[in-house]
Amino acid sequence: MSRFFSDVFLALVHYPVTNKRGEVVVTALTTLDLHDISRAAVTYGVRGFYVVTPLDAHKELAARMWRHWTEGYGSTYNPLRGEALRNSRVVDTVADAVAAATREAGRPPVVVATTARDVSRPRLSYEVLRRQLQESGGAYLLLFGTGWGLAEEILLKADQVLDPIYGPTPYNHLSVRSAVAITLDRLLGLRGGEENFRQGTE
Amino acid sequence: MSRFFSDVFLALVHYPVTNKRGEVVVTALTTLDLHDISRAAVTYGVRGFYVVTPLDAHKELAARMWRHWTEGYGSTYNPLRGEALRNSRVVDTVADAVAAATREAGRPPVVVATTARDVSRPRLSYEVLRRQLQESGGAYLLLFGTGWGLAEEILLKADQVLDPIYGPTPYNHLSVRSAVAITLDRLLGLRGGEENFRQGTE
Repeated sequence: MSRFFSDVFLALVHYPVTNKRGEVVVTALTTLDLHDISRAAVTYGVRGFYVVTPLDAHKELAARMWRHWTEGYGSTYNPLRGEALRNSRVVDTVADAVAAATREAGRPPVVVATTARDVSRPRLSYEVLRRQLQESGGAYLLLFGTGWGLAEEILLKADQVLDPIYGPTPYNHLSVRSAVAITLDRLLGLRGGEENFRQGTE
Repeated sequence: MSRFFSDVFLALVHYPVTNKRGEVVVTALTTLDLHDISRAAVTYGVRGFYVVTPLDAHKELAARMWRHWTEGYGSTYNPLRGEALRNSRVVDTVADAVAAATREAGRPPVVVATTARDVSRPRLSYEVLRRQLQESGGAYLLLFGTGWGLAEEILLKADQVLDPIYGPTPYNHLSVRSAVAITLDRLLGLRGGEENFRQGTE
């Protein structure tokens, strides 16, 4: 019941995204985003996590962090962080993330953009995408924007745009770290009555 | 349908928690935790967010941050952060968080601890607690531990312990920021078919 037949990939986009005035900008990569999101990705069985940034200095920062936790002192201090980061990789552009997921999955992914803002096209609900992930056997790439969210060009080019996350209030300004965690749980989390990986061993 | 009749409070505990060797320690307060968790708390209609730390230097850090975003330059630069922080408050101990929630709600809260580790007592499922929050009209205080999680004494003293968060894999080492976001969405998020606050205005 809880088997997900599809390959799910995830990208954290630092360009092109908007700032609070709606201008398209590059945001700074933060190592905490990479830790939090790689840990959530591994928890939910995501096959690859792509960090999208065109900036060489930020690529180098990510690479140093990656080495520290997977090979350096961090790998013995806290091996769980390295385990989480092993599925992650830095790429230059969203197109490169799509290409990497295509190579990895052996077929092009359905690109699903996320945004808390309004967008002039129909949205996909979590329930419908969850059913697709369980049944279609396809590849899917979920895009998350840093800053104030993915730029319009990405939202228009993606194959689908997922519903925004709302709780029972009108406030919807979650951090990208929280938004990724909630989205993965809604799409890939176990539901009451679904088969649990642990049940086989208990 | 999606009305939550109960008052939900949340505490982020920096003491007593364990380190990776299982020793009871005080962890450092990080401002990013406070931002992420206060934004998630406001999104899900949490009535109060208590930051538990006994350390004066960390209380002062939280107070400076609070002033910056609710009164200082940050309040005009990004008013959404101040809006999120207005429901938050620093307290010395878990007992003080319980007392503050009691004063705020007008009745003592059911204290619900969370942990990813094993615990020698029965656990509450998300579905059961969700139904209680919708129907009981009580007050509830959810406790989250930083570091490697809440100390045993808190897990044993709490009224209930919530199930750990698992995805479809055995890896369950989420950050506390991700764990809070997922827990609030599971307990207080809208479900397909439930009434949406936005439907009244559309």
